[in-house]
Amino acid sequence: MTGDIRTPVTVIGMGSMGRALAEAFLDAGHPTTVWNRTPEKAEPLVARGAVRAGRVEDAVAASPLVVTCLTTFEDTREALEGAADALRGRDLVTLNSGSPAGARETAAWATAVGARFLAGAVKNVPSAVGAPDTLLYYGGDRGLFEEHVATLRVLGGDTVHLGDGTDLAALYEMAVGAMLLPALVGFFQGAAAVQARGLPASSMVGFAGKWLDMIKSLLPVYAEEIDSGDYTDAASSVNLFLAGAAHDEELAVETHVDTSWIAPLNALLERAVEAGHGEHSIAALTEVLRVGGNPSEERKLTADH
Amino acid sequence: MTGDIRTPVTVIGMGSMGRALAEAFLDAGHPTTVWNRTPEKAEPLVARGAVRAGRVEDAVAASPLVVTCLTTFEDTREALEGAADALRGRDLVTLNSGSPAGARETAAWATAVGARFLAGAVKNVPSAVGAPDTLLYYGGDRGLFEEHVATLRVLGGDTVHLGDGTDLAALYEMAVGAMLLPALVGFFQGAAAVQARGLPASSMVGFAGKWLDMIKSLLPVYAEEIDSGDYTDAASSVNLFLAGAAHDEELAVETHVDTSWIAPLNALLERAVEAGHGEHSIAALTEVLRVGGNPSEERKLTADH
Repeated sequence: MTGDIRTPVTVIGMGSMGRALAEAFLDAGHPTTVWNRTPEKAEPLVARGAVRAGRVEDAVAASPLVVTCLTTFEDTREALEGAADALRGRDLVTLNSGSPAGARETAAWATAVGARFLAGAVKNVPSAVGAPDTLLYYGGDRGLFEEHVATLRVLGGDTVHLGDGTDLAALYEMAVGAMLLPALVGFFQGAAAVQARGLPASSMVGFAGKWLDMIKSLLPVYAEEIDSGDYTDAASSVNLFLAGAAHDEELAVETHVDTSWIAPLNALLERAVEAGHGEHSIAALTEVLRVGGNPSEERKLTADH
Repeated sequence: MTGDIRTPVTVIGMGSMGRALAEAFLDAGHPTTVWNRTPEKAEPLVARGAVRAGRVEDAVAASPLVVTCLTTFEDTREALEGAADALRGRDLVTLNSGSPAGARETAAWATAVGARFLAGAVKNVPSAVGAPDTLLYYGGDRGLFEEHVATLRVLGGDTVHLGDGTDLAALYEMAVGAMLLPALVGFFQGAAAVQARGLPASSMVGFAGKWLDMIKSLLPVYAEEIDSGDYTDAASSVNLFLAGAAHDEELAVETHVDTSWIAPLNALLERAVEAGHGEHSIAALTEVLRVGGNPSEERKLTADH
């Protein structure tokens, strides 16, 4: 009968994402303990049935599975510093952004205090936590992941193990996340340009959504070009993008928008042309973004190791 | 019975998009004349039933509806220069990228030679031309658009009239298009980072696609914030993005990727914080991108005119 009892879970960090995680665990029937540096933020969870721990070590001691949702790995280690003894024999899962190096340091620290460790990331907004299609991915020991996968899937149906490296989620988090701010600033610039004509930003939402669908449809093609190193079958060439770049200044003047943030992107296009990629696919920019060496050769060596 | 005869169409410019447009007209049963500066490029279309005109003026004379698909408005006017007399009484539709000013100049030129004019844009790749969901939008006289909408819809089922301004398609083209290169460079940077770990770029395609879906889901929220000027209900604050930006340098070092193109984006975040938007929604960057003045007040004035 004990098989029916849901794993007790502790959630540390009651920002909007941490609260969403705790709510999902509560909704799925997991005994849930919560802790936050400023305790008031945990109150809405207590109202929904969570236990609020007074001290971080009590929060850690309350559950075999401890999930942290703080801003960075540094914040995470700092918050857990006083709970090092309580972490012995516990399983620690981090869900935050940060660098691969930060994930590795946190893994080493967790191992040193006697905890097992997975580092993950939520690839969506707080309101999407718990939905069947919501993606979360984790790096670290596969056996440990499999022990907890049923519990972790409560946070999102698309729960993925990336591999044994504890820094893999941070790596993919940064790799995939690199599209976000640039894409949004592009949208905001467009919104400002449309508004400068007295039209609402909302008038471009449908078009922009379709544009993102189109970009999504291109990614498998570009990934194949990047993996093969063959950029010669170019649907959209570097030169074509460079021709479009010539209008940035006109747009800036006409719509009173500061487009200067685009200049380094256009410089990348020019460097790609100098490197002989003018008539190649725009994905050849990947080669210009690599620092030093013959990338495809180096890549093969790395992969062989 | 003449109602059953499809409008004869001329397509000028046989790049990959121009060829796709001509193919769609042919497939839909429109008598189609094609022209390209280098005539060889029109040959595949002739094999499919198109008539190749020897001179641009013959191409224009052949059909009441002339669709151009050249790289810019300047290229378009240059290509049509010799066909000014033939254009009298014709309807000219441009499908190219370019600035709003370029669209207005081309509209003035077309009117001067006695042609009616619509300026449009294809918001997708050549292989999507003709599909029911493919978006094309047009600016210019509504009556003229409605005369030809059945024919234009052959190019994509989602065919939209933006308004009477002949520069509106160019405006939206630039506004919506501003996401493309930044988003792609973000993806390419991520691909290079993943490859630096010996993992294929293809391993991030699924995650990146979901990430774009997530970005798409945020756009209506951001547009509403931008239109209302109220950024106080922040799901993701400027400060949160700034905290993430601190890791760019670590990522660059660890993955041997040149992330310097991101610096101006981080500078925008800092300018937004200086302007008091630190705890506001990331959409408040729109205010920083506007050049000069009190934007929301100015906006209202513009809209009132």
